[in-house]
Amino acid sequence: MQYNPIKTEYINPFIESVTTVFKTMLSLDVRRGALYIKDGFQPSLEITGVIGLSGIAKGSVLLGVSKNVAMTATEILLGEKMTTIDHNVVDAVGELTNMIVGGAKAKLESLNMCMGLPTVVVGKNHTVVFPTGIRPIGIPFESDAGPFCLEVSLVDS
Amino acid sequence: MQYNPIKTEYINPFIESVTTVFKTMLSLDVRRGALYIKDGFQPSLEITGVIGLSGIAKGSVLLGVSKNVAMTATEILLGEKMTTIDHNVVDAVGELTNMIVGGAKAKLESLNMCMGLPTVVVGKNHTVVFPTGIRPIGIPFESDAGPFCLEVSLVDS
Repeated sequence: MQYNPIKTEYINPFIESVTTVFKTMLSLDVRRGALYIKDGFQPSLEITGVIGLSGIAKGSVLLGVSKNVAMTATEILLGEKMTTIDHNVVDAVGELTNMIVGGAKAKLESLNMCMGLPTVVVGKNHTVVFPTGIRPIGIPFESDAGPFCLEVSLVDS
Repeated sequence: MQYNPIKTEYINPFIESVTTVFKTMLSLDVRRGALYIKDGFQPSLEITGVIGLSGIAKGSVLLGVSKNVAMTATEILLGEKMTTIDHNVVDAVGELTNMIVGGAKAKLESLNMCMGLPTVVVGKNHTVVFPTGIRPIGIPFESDAGPFCLEVSLVDS
């Protein structure tokens, strides 16, 4: 099945939401890199939060973070030193994904979208692949804690 | 955040849908094992299809398959021998996930749920983890092509 490319007006709310969530929740400034169209089996970062969206447009949003970003974010949110990728780290990545997507969804209210629950993929060599015909937009970011990336696929239902 | 446990009446439509999809699309009989509550970081099978659901209930459904199940399913659907996990295999797992969730959603129409688009996780040592407070039900299956598993989390919105 072939879908239309994602509309650019769907992307800016996600970029703004990433910036706001990292600044307000983690006190981290982020620097955005060049957008790209994800195509194929590029390996993902070590931890990926996934949320599905459905409504007038539907799709998925992935927040891929390095281990250091995940651990640092968890330490900031909980005020505790983390030593391993445990449930606290999974919950922190799930919650960041949830807040980023929730913020963007609010700005895209004309699309009347509902969010599913986040799931979090953990694994050094995993890849999250979109079906053929979906062309997700990748938005790479750098922060003082390391790199992370948002990938957004959203097509008209 | 703590959610109520998944209702058992939400599970049967998924079991029926798995059986129907594997029989009609792949001509494969499946044998269901004992249901379990997924809790923690049990490693996933090599390929996982993920779809988000939202509506009166919301959550995620994961179809985890062994490499052999994924390759066999793709060969049956395409009528071609597969040698590697490529886009055809990803699409086949995404489409099976889509059909299983679509079939169950139709039987749960009172929940008025919408489906996102599938994404597919590929990687030998990945784990898909649900946030704390979500208690997904795991439904293991055996088929002549090998083992696979459906994991369903669905909570009232």
